[in-house]
Amino acid sequence: MKIFIDEIKENEPVDSLFLVREKSFGVTKNGNAYLKLSLVDRSGEIEGRIWTSVDLVSGSFEKDDFVHLKGKAISFQDHLQMNITHIERVKEEGILLADFFPMTERDVDEMFQSLVEIGKQVKDPSLGQLLVLFWEDKPFVERFKIAPASTRLHHTYIGGLLEHTLSLTQLIVKNASHYTGLNLDLLITASILHDLGKVDELSYHRSFDYSDEGRLLGHIILGMERLEDKLRQLSDFPKDLALQLKHLLISHHGQYQWGSPRKPMTLEAVMLHYLDNLDARMNGIQQFLRKQVPEGSRLSRYHPFFEQYFYIPAQKVEMELPNITEEKEIEEE
Amino acid sequence: MKIFIDEIKENEPVDSLFLVREKSFGVTKNGNAYLKLSLVDRSGEIEGRIWTSVDLVSGSFEKDDFVHLKGKAISFQDHLQMNITHIERVKEEGILLADFFPMTERDVDEMFQSLVEIGKQVKDPSLGQLLVLFWEDKPFVERFKIAPASTRLHHTYIGGLLEHTLSLTQLIVKNASHYTGLNLDLLITASILHDLGKVDELSYHRSFDYSDEGRLLGHIILGMERLEDKLRQLSDFPKDLALQLKHLLISHHGQYQWGSPRKPMTLEAVMLHYLDNLDARMNGIQQFLRKQVPEGSRLSRYHPFFEQYFYIPAQKVEMELPNITEEKEIEEE
Amino acid sequence: MKIFIDEIKENEPVDSLFLVREKSFGVTKNGNAYLKLSLVDRSGEIEGRIWTSVDLVSGSFEKDDFVHLKGKAISFQDHLQMNITHIERVKEEGILLADFFPMTERDVDEMFQSLVEIGKQVKDPSLGQLLVLFWEDKPFVERFKIAPASTRLHHTYIGGLLEHTLSLTQLIVKNASHYTGLNLDLLITASILHDLGKVDELSYHRSFDYSDEGRLLGHIILGMERLEDKLRQLSDFPKDLALQLKHLLISHHGQYQWGSPRKPMTLEAVMLHYLDNLDARMNGIQQFLRKQVPEGSRLSRYHPFFEQYFYIPAQKVEMELPNITEEKEIEEE
Amino acid sequence: MKIFIDEIKENEPVDSLFLVREKSFGVTKNGNAYLKLSLVDRSGEIEGRIWTSVDLVSGSFEKDDFVHLKGKAISFQDHLQMNITHIERVKEEGILLADFFPMTERDVDEMFQSLVEIGKQVKDPSLGQLLVLFWEDKPFVERFKIAPASTRLHHTYIGGLLEHTLSLTQLIVKNASHYTGLNLDLLITASILHDLGKVDELSYHRSFDYSDEGRLLGHIILGMERLEDKLRQLSDFPKDLALQLKHLLISHHGQYQWGSPRKPMTLEAVMLHYLDNLDARMNGIQQFLRKQVPEGSRLSRYHPFFEQYFYIPAQKVEMELPNITEEKEIEEE
Amino acid sequence: MKIFIDEIKENEPVDSLFLVREKSFGVTKNGNAYLKLSLVDRSGEIEGRIWTSVDLVSGSFEKDDFVHLKGKAISFQDHLQMNITHIERVKEEGILLADFFPMTERDVDEMFQSLVEIGKQVKDPSLGQLLVLFWEDKPFVERFKIAPASTRLHHTYIGGLLEHTLSLTQLIVKNASHYTGLNLDLLITASILHDLGKVDELSYHRSFDYSDEGRLLGHIILGMERLEDKLRQLSDFPKDLALQLKHLLISHHGQYQWGSPRKPMTLEAVMLHYLDNLDARMNGIQQFLRKQVPEGSRLSRYHPFFEQYFYIPAQKVEMELPNITEEKEIEEE
Amino acid sequence: MKIFIDEIKENEPVDSLFLVREKSFGVTKNGNAYLKLSLVDRSGEIEGRIWTSVDLVSGSFEKDDFVHLKGKAISFQDHLQMNITHIERVKEEGILLADFFPMTERDVDEMFQSLVEIGKQVKDPSLGQLLVLFWEDKPFVERFKIAPASTRLHHTYIGGLLEHTLSLTQLIVKNASHYTGLNLDLLITASILHDLGKVDELSYHRSFDYSDEGRLLGHIILGMERLEDKLRQLSDFPKDLALQLKHLLISHHGQYQWGSPRKPMTLEAVMLHYLDNLDARMNGIQQFLRKQVPEGSRLSRYHPFFEQYFYIPAQKVEMELPNITEEKEIEEE
Repeated sequence: MKIFIDEIKENEPVDSLFLVREKSFGVTKNGNAYLKLSLVDRSGEIEGRIWTSVDLVSGSFEKDDFVHLKGKAISFQDHLQMNITHIERVKEEGILLADFFPMTERDVDEMFQSLVEIGKQVKDPSLGQLLVLFWEDKPFVERFKIAPASTRLHHTYIGGLLEHTLSLTQLIVKNASHYTGLNLDLLITASILHDLGKVDELSYHRSFDYSDEGRLLGHIILGMERLEDKLRQLSDFPKDLALQLKHLLISHHGQYQWGSPRKPMTLEAVMLHYLDNLDARMNGIQQFLRKQVPEGSRLSRYHPFFEQYFYIPAQKVEMELPNITEEKEIEEE
Repeated sequence: MKIFIDEIKENEPVDSLFLVREKSFGVTKNGNAYLKLSLVDRSGEIEGRIWTSVDLVSGSFEKDDFVHLKGKAISFQDHLQMNITHIERVKEEGILLADFFPMTERDVDEMFQSLVEIGKQVKDPSLGQLLVLFWEDKPFVERFKIAPASTRLHHTYIGGLLEHTLSLTQLIVKNASHYTGLNLDLLITASILHDLGKVDELSYHRSFDYSDEGRLLGHIILGMERLEDKLRQLSDFPKDLALQLKHLLISHHGQYQWGSPRKPMTLEAVMLHYLDNLDARMNGIQQFLRKQVPEGSRLSRYHPFFEQYFYIPAQKVEMELPNITEEKEIEEE
Repeated sequence: MKIFIDEIKENEPVDSLFLVREKSFGVTKNGNAYLKLSLVDRSGEIEGRIWTSVDLVSGSFEKDDFVHLKGKAISFQDHLQMNITHIERVKEEGILLADFFPMTERDVDEMFQSLVEIGKQVKDPSLGQLLVLFWEDKPFVERFKIAPASTRLHHTYIGGLLEHTLSLTQLIVKNASHYTGLNLDLLITASILHDLGKVDELSYHRSFDYSDEGRLLGHIILGMERLEDKLRQLSDFPKDLALQLKHLLISHHGQYQWGSPRKPMTLEAVMLHYLDNLDARMNGIQQFLRKQVPEGSRLSRYHPFFEQYFYIPAQKVEMELPNITEEKEIEEE
Repeated sequence: MKIFIDEIKENEPVDSLFLVREKSFGVTKNGNAYLKLSLVDRSGEIEGRIWTSVDLVSGSFEKDDFVHLKGKAISFQDHLQMNITHIERVKEEGILLADFFPMTERDVDEMFQSLVEIGKQVKDPSLGQLLVLFWEDKPFVERFKIAPASTRLHHTYIGGLLEHTLSLTQLIVKNASHYTGLNLDLLITASILHDLGKVDELSYHRSFDYSDEGRLLGHIILGMERLEDKLRQLSDFPKDLALQLKHLLISHHGQYQWGSPRKPMTLEAVMLHYLDNLDARMNGIQQFLRKQVPEGSRLSRYHPFFEQYFYIPAQKVEMELPNITEEKEIEEE
Repeated sequence: MKIFIDEIKENEPVDSLFLVREKSFGVTKNGNAYLKLSLVDRSGEIEGRIWTSVDLVSGSFEKDDFVHLKGKAISFQDHLQMNITHIERVKEEGILLADFFPMTERDVDEMFQSLVEIGKQVKDPSLGQLLVLFWEDKPFVERFKIAPASTRLHHTYIGGLLEHTLSLTQLIVKNASHYTGLNLDLLITASILHDLGKVDELSYHRSFDYSDEGRLLGHIILGMERLEDKLRQLSDFPKDLALQLKHLLISHHGQYQWGSPRKPMTLEAVMLHYLDNLDARMNGIQQFLRKQVPEGSRLSRYHPFFEQYFYIPAQKVEMELPNITEEKEIEEE
Repeated sequence: MKIFIDEIKENEPVDSLFLVREKSFGVTKNGNAYLKLSLVDRSGEIEGRIWTSVDLVSGSFEKDDFVHLKGKAISFQDHLQMNITHIERVKEEGILLADFFPMTERDVDEMFQSLVEIGKQVKDPSLGQLLVLFWEDKPFVERFKIAPASTRLHHTYIGGLLEHTLSLTQLIVKNASHYTGLNLDLLITASILHDLGKVDELSYHRSFDYSDEGRLLGHIILGMERLEDKLRQLSDFPKDLALQLKHLLISHHGQYQWGSPRKPMTLEAVMLHYLDNLDARMNGIQQFLRKQVPEGSRLSRYHPFFEQYFYIPAQKVEMELPNITEEKEIEEE
């Protein structure tokens, strides 16, 4: 059974699975090498030390591997540290991702099914076929279900990309009929595909960060590549429709400074941009309020990206209160 | 019967109502004074000249008066000009506003009734009472039904403020349930009142421009004054609820540079800001596309405020086509 | 007699008044709860610990209370920490504010009297009456005398708002006659009232921070509410004069990005803005130079808000030197 | 023989080829329709009128057609205007582009050959093959030789894209060896392909403007599509090399606000960006100085894009003087 | 006696002095060359034509010369135009500058004397000597008395630099004692010299524009050169004092984007910057209000540089009303 | 022989030269004063303590002195600290600068000679003479050879200014002939002198920081002073040439916000700006990549000034790999 890092106590034995975030060497005062590890799971981080058989052990696992550990937690300079007596690499298949990463609270398969259903409402045959091609691409679907939507700002958890995509598409369906003359088929398709490239932009199997492709090209370009690849398989896809769909994808950030090579120029692109922004902000602020409101306060900490504070009104008695857990303290006096 | 300015032909007599936009004096080569008028109605603008009894006539009407004119259109330097033989001030009561200003295409009373109905869904008694106070304020309601929402960017026509307010409130109702924990009563009330101060900010009885109060204080401050005035009449209005409502009003522009003295700090304020923005942009771009797309082109003219072009996709066969009337030409060769 | 925190020495008993800035619980290695306090006064901050009768004691005081403490300072991990043996809540009335907060160095009542005297020079009866209404509002005057002018940038001490208001009003009197055609009565009144809302924006009884009203509305809106409240009591206050006065108040920050909903549009508003800015900067830089110039240097530390360094020229032999006290050190070796 | 518009004189017959920039209808005072044309060639623009057989003639040509005209220039309201007696559509094949558009002063085929030669220096076989694929793509090469590099800022003439690409690639060769560790093969290839998408972004057969693809996607996305298309044909093109090459293409504008979805992150990308910028500016300023320096002045007119004036120093006696032709005047008094 | 351009009437003879702003050639319909002149004085601008002896006359004067003209005003295309029968170059010495350029309304010599008197209050001998050196520099003083302070924004008239310098220095004297620890001698000296370089930056003998030196270097650099030149003559001028004085000069614009190579870093530099800004704005807005408020309005036209409107309150009954002269009209009907 | 700080080991004696970065007093728990030193050399920083004869020793050296130390390293709170038993001031002459500061890796005298040689290619006698004057100014040349080019961004080492100047001048020579009509003599001279003022702006004998002159005036103004000083010695230096040269110097930063009082207005100034920028960035990024790429990563740390990450492509097998030394660790467990 998984023992979580925030449950480990001084002088108690530990026997569980962890992820190796960092691995490096240290030298004792006596000049002997030892292994320094940083071990993580969903609940936190702890230092680990391997003092013996360092050469031998060192080659058996790497940074970003999952490992099965045995050892004991001791207190060193007011922090807990694990003295490791046994370590063994574990394959990813045997791992429950939710033990190691924040996860969406919603059911991934249900969400995916809901998205597929909305896609079926698209009447335009070319756009409908395009969506089917994506759903038939198994490796894509697998990544699409797991990827987070962002490393920092919103839906930053396993399944976040899918959750955000579904939420935005539902907003589109709700709002598109409010204005006349919008191409709903185009809007639904573009909404489903708008953050497509994030399956390649982010690396999220060990930690949430950018892949090299993500850093050097960004999800807009990466998404265009995946879209092009599918469009080539649909030889009679209308050229003008493809042009519009691409425009919606590359302009959905809305501003040059947010990495959009074009501003939204059609009514559909404008709506997609505003609702995408709304959904990202609402989720991002909700996540932030859950973690960044000091106990007893209605005011959040400063949000460095938005450069402001947020506020939880007292009025909302019916509102689900943010879950503010005080960090547990273990002190030695 | 109203003869519209764009229907006036050379050498034909004119006998109709017009609005005097400008009034000034000129001097003929012989040293005689004459009156120069700029006359307008919904369809355009024409110069007028009064050559005789200038002193007498001049005192009988002023700039921004409606007048009943008789005269004949002649051609001077390639433009039509009216030589006026009779002019008489007409009271505003006898005027059909729609002859002189652009009007909403929707029924004002129906829209107002729809807004009142949504307001009745507010369950919080304090907020509900507040809305009733506004609806009972007849002079306010009268102005609220007529005011445009903006001088330039969106809903720039008689009834535009009401049309925008209703549209935004409908969007709020559609979207608020999409996120958990939002105070719907507060959102509906804030949406109905969000642009309140525009009834005082803009002067729209003669032309769309800012009033002195509008220039010096702006609609956010002016709206706060009207809100304060009503809140004082509700002695037990919860202080905290008033604080939140005011915050939604003063932050709905979203950014300091758009004249908001505060950024949105609550989830409700964030949603109000984004949907207000969406509705203003969608309407503004639709208005712009109706007038600013050259015939035969899909690309609009440059939009100086948004600093970009807009585009009408060919794909939308079902879309109501923008109504592009080529300006009529009358030439003399 | 007050023992200041920077006077406390290791292993000596302490018996004095302090303010509780933070209060939380810790758990010893043995699993026992204890109380962790952060105690402050004007001179600094010290950690406190209560190891016994935790449940009992904990309910007898709260964060932000003043308390009477007895205990002994010990050294823990190179810092002094107080082991508290007695703690008792003390009412605010028995407290000398100057023991706990930075204070203006000038006499508050003298400054207030000077401001009232300048106000008496206003000849316009409406403006004169308005000022009298404010001076007769005792709760307002009390707050007005205590409030700081800012949490960070200038006059950040008890009495700072009054000091800044007096200083600005004196500058106005000095400079207004330099230009022709300025309305001196309006300028003096607007200067006295310009930061009015800061009595509500900031909370300054326990620490310098923003109140909820301050965060959500800001001092410009809060000041407008107080001004409106008084104007209602003056039924014949000229409408146009009120409009101008309000414009001066809401535009005095000068720029949208500094939270002004309007830029200064009249000559009076322009002068008020520039001199307000001058006075805030001069005081802010003087305060900064007093604390943020390393000993032996003429160059200050980096000022993060102004994004620059400041410099004290050597030339000014007659200048009162900034009072740079090296922080005392207590080390254990 | 081509009669250029700036050679046409009042009351003289005209018989030559022109491009129809605008075509619309007017109505005479008698109520008869006539055709209004705007005719252009390299030297300027002139109005044309067709008064008879309007219905018949109108269907025989369109806006943006080349036409063979006969007629006579008359003076109307101080401008020359052509009364057209014969008009006939002419196919593009019979047209000398240089009669209608500004052209590079350099030999297009020589420039192209020089570029191909530099490309042959690329030693990396994958990159070398890639270039060969582009050179073998005849329709691409044809467009690549004709396209301008920009509609407004630099190399705004037929052949400008090729001229700029060659110039930049020569700069790259000169400068790459100045720094150690740069991948010259990658730099040369990226330089040759950096503005690839401009063959699709701009429409330049009738006037210099953006194509729909250019407006909605931009040359960076369009270039990526062309690059992807070729890379697919090279199945063993190293993935990492493709990633770098794409990064150089999408980051070469250097800044988000200039439409780059990424900033340059590698040393090669930084160099490409700076030298591209240098070459565009030098050419753009030289073009500007040729046309926008008033006679007798060393100071240029204001450059609205760069928001500054430019200056031609007197010192440069050896410098080829800008060719400032005063606009000819034809007046009627 | 000077006949001003706004006094010239149709068909009346003219015999007076004018400045030639533009001079170019036209060609009549008969193919004959004629001279086109643009003639200006303080009151306006008028076109002039010389139809005979063009070759002969053309060489006798140039653009920017003052000329003595005889001719007659005729009406051409609704504008007055002068047919010139006699033209003769006039030396500058015989010219009254005030006939040709806007002038300060104050007495130049009195203002200069006031400035010298304030300078005498400087007690520091080095700074005092420095000022004397400038006053003894006759060519400098002559230019200093004539130069405008700006081409567009404030004090844009002959004597404007002196008027602004005196006004700022008086403000400095009024305000410096308000804060403790300021070096008044340094402030007065820096104030007197702060815009020194404007005597070289602007060319103002024929029109208000920038000199080549002004364009390429700017008045801050040009002022530093003049200051350096004087400092070299004062061999024992304290190095540190010179450093401070230079800092005040180069930082007085306050911001990099306004061309200051440094921000104000000392209290004196901060005060100089704010009061300079105040004086420039107050004068600039007053000038603007005099010309740019439509008759009958309290609201000015849009100010393109400040990006706002200005407002003249009704309240100020005692205020000298702006002098709004309606442009005279001469029409032919 | 120099013992470097990163070679010092616990409990071993030290006897070597160090630079005193900080010097202050502490008080032991017993109330005795002791001296706290921060000692540095090229390899790092270490704390030092002097426990005895504090009064006597304290007067014998100051902050920023080089000292000869004897003592022993002990471990205190997990850091090494030196207990000093002997300390003695050492004159700068006896010091090898390269032991204490980062140095250019290139030979300073060779670089200087190369620069002089390029300068000899200048054919214009005035510019040639000007360069000779600088080379004959021995104190200048000495500083010019030692100064770094920047405190943070590029060439931040002893000799960096010279290295950057030579590199830029070589780039100028390579690129100037690529465009027609450039004044090469002017470009070479301006390139050699462009950062002239940095010899005074930066203080680099003890640490890399700004001098007072550098802070208050900046290297552009300081360079102008040195240039003016030389130009005065060349009485017949053409005025117009001096104007151009000065313009190149003051505009080479290219933008107001980077402290240039003017933007580049001539072709030469534009080229100088772009190539200066290129050289500074290329060197700065190379320096950054050497230190700020975590081991095993291709991605650098975040660059706070450029606000981005940089990337080292895998492709460059021939590239000299950045020298990433893991920081040595000494731990006590």
